[in-house]
Amino acid sequence: MKHNRRQFLTRSGIIGGTALTLGLNTNLYSKNFNITKKNANMKLSFKPYTLELKHVFTIATSSRSTTPVMLTQIEYDGVIGYGEASMPPYLGESQESASAFLSKVNLSQFKDPFEIESILEYVDGIAEKNTAAKAAVDIALHDLIGKLLGKPWYKIWGFKKDTTPSTSFTIGIDTDEVVKQKVKEAEVYNILKVKLGRENDKDMINTIRSVTDKPIIVDVNQGWKEKEFALEMINWLNERNVKLIEQPMPKEQIDDMAWLTEHSPLPTFADESLQRLPDVIKAHGVYTGINIKLMKCTGLREAHKMLTLAKSLGMQIMLGCMTETSCAISAASQLAPEVEWADLDGNLLISNDPFEGTKIINGKIELTEDPGIGLSKAASY
Amino acid sequence: MKHNRRQFLTRSGIIGGTALTLGLNTNLYSKNFNITKKNANMKLSFKPYTLELKHVFTIATSSRSTTPVMLTQIEYDGVIGYGEASMPPYLGESQESASAFLSKVNLSQFKDPFEIESILEYVDGIAEKNTAAKAAVDIALHDLIGKLLGKPWYKIWGFKKDTTPSTSFTIGIDTDEVVKQKVKEAEVYNILKVKLGRENDKDMINTIRSVTDKPIIVDVNQGWKEKEFALEMINWLNERNVKLIEQPMPKEQIDDMAWLTEHSPLPTFADESLQRLPDVIKAHGVYTGINIKLMKCTGLREAHKMLTLAKSLGMQIMLGCMTETSCAISAASQLAPEVEWADLDGNLLISNDPFEGTKIINGKIELTEDPGIGLSKAASY
Repeated sequence: MKHNRRQFLTRSGIIGGTALTLGLNTNLYSKNFNITKKNANMKLSFKPYTLELKHVFTIATSSRSTTPVMLTQIEYDGVIGYGEASMPPYLGESQESASAFLSKVNLSQFKDPFEIESILEYVDGIAEKNTAAKAAVDIALHDLIGKLLGKPWYKIWGFKKDTTPSTSFTIGIDTDEVVKQKVKEAEVYNILKVKLGRENDKDMINTIRSVTDKPIIVDVNQGWKEKEFALEMINWLNERNVKLIEQPMPKEQIDDMAWLTEHSPLPTFADESLQRLPDVIKAHGVYTGINIKLMKCTGLREAHKMLTLAKSLGMQIMLGCMTETSCAISAASQLAPEVEWADLDGNLLISNDPFEGTKIINGKIELTEDPGIGLSKAASY
Repeated sequence: MKHNRRQFLTRSGIIGGTALTLGLNTNLYSKNFNITKKNANMKLSFKPYTLELKHVFTIATSSRSTTPVMLTQIEYDGVIGYGEASMPPYLGESQESASAFLSKVNLSQFKDPFEIESILEYVDGIAEKNTAAKAAVDIALHDLIGKLLGKPWYKIWGFKKDTTPSTSFTIGIDTDEVVKQKVKEAEVYNILKVKLGRENDKDMINTIRSVTDKPIIVDVNQGWKEKEFALEMINWLNERNVKLIEQPMPKEQIDDMAWLTEHSPLPTFADESLQRLPDVIKAHGVYTGINIKLMKCTGLREAHKMLTLAKSLGMQIMLGCMTETSCAISAASQLAPEVEWADLDGNLLISNDPFEGTKIINGKIELTEDPGIGLSKAASY
């Protein structure tokens, strides 16, 4: 069965490193695949897709104009749950590694998608790392279960729709003129995000401040190496309506970071320091808050646990993302009613989003009433 | 509206300190109460009830033959969710205090029962303590929401039915002959629970061991005052197939307790040391595990968070209870698939249980497929 599916997927070009155009022939998979096992339950399929970025994207260490993703579907009882793995190259996953991982996932051994704790424990145990590929299973499973329950996950979790924050919108590092232009284009957003940690940090902020007074959140990507310098920078930023600092120092410098958080007038957030649930406890007392990203923490189930844990520890929470479609963004946004900060602009940066879901209205995250992860339009393949 | 309801409840004898017999006239409340507010949403009602114990129950500090409870119902859109507050006198709540608290709960301000996080935050903020009364609202709300979703909570939480543990069954302190008789009657149970912390601790264990080799869990109720003596006792118990020790020492003796846990061959569990979510972190490093009881932690929502937190800290979990009906027991048992230990025998000790739900089959907790908190029979009033 598993072997046959694998053969089918390979023949159909569903497995492979090349990006395919999403066709209009909905659910090619179920139409062509001869299902021989009568009580086969959940059926996982996946397909690579390449996101086209509207602008070349620059962070402290690299630039790029596309992002490889893997789209997933889990079909059960005529219902399809949608998922996605987004794999910016610097995180170590690829369409090849995701294909290899997802080919090993055999959901037919589980009779009931509601046994999600056991299912995801099994998926997590298949191989180490592969957190984005794992998230692609987790998200599709959540979409499926939410649809079976007839409710979006924010409701199943008991949250209140109208308490979602505004999302920040990232202004990439560029020339003065381009930065000013980007800030202008970002008029609808209430909070800007800026990547610092380079030579020209103050110039970048000054350029933005020459055109807007909007609150800014800053991501340093481990760029500041000395705590005194970091504190000096934070004090300078604090006077310029900056609201928080993500990962100011290298993740290894834990004592320096704890000192910095203690002295900082702004909240500090763990990003590179934090991947999964056990890292939340480690970040406690070192950072003010944590940045939860589905692609790093294996998906919604672990993200929800991290949120519960962080809140019980009195830590602030930010939701982050990769460049990703409205599929993963809508999934992450289901947690948004319970967080202080959201940086869920990944889908806004791409020109070929095959999904529709959570929207940004006047800069604020607006959840849909659609069940599951809240998709209002999905492109089956 | 609130005033009218209060008047109605008082006139009908629903509020009051006396136990009422549960009638067969289902849902007296909705039949008689003139609902004037058209879009009034959730309607909370409550009624005192007195549990009759099969045997007089003795712990280190008291004996009793009845337990006062308060039954609750939340009606919404034609669906009724059932809840319960159990109030053994030593915990400081009563039918009077629960009536007073529940009379203040105005759910009509909430349009949607799914906003449970906000609703329970409001309920928690009405007054301090009153944890059983708060649990009575929480449980009814969970029963309602689960029914609206059409699934039991263990499924909504993603757990697997068949991983529930056996429940322990408490053998009360009594004469040798009665203890032996009780052990005989408890033949169906796989684990016995014994309350120690008195003069005759070893006698009690020896008496039980003269008739059975079954595993025993021990609850000391803070009875041992010196850590060296406690360790000596634990070592003695460890040689007699005792599996864990609940609250061996006074809750104030934190350093002694941490020392004891470090040296103990058996896991130690916080009970009196622990009430609600923030106490889990405090118990970490002091005890091996925690005993979660709905009546102490305000209900299922906080219990689920405590479970998530404790598991992420690598702590063991035990589910405990008061003497209570199958309503609260079925609610607590929804968490059972994820715990190592369960002491959910409260409903087995009473002779007038108005509910049916989770069963004990061959000593093991067997969840039903009924939605919400898993009740298969409920007595509306």
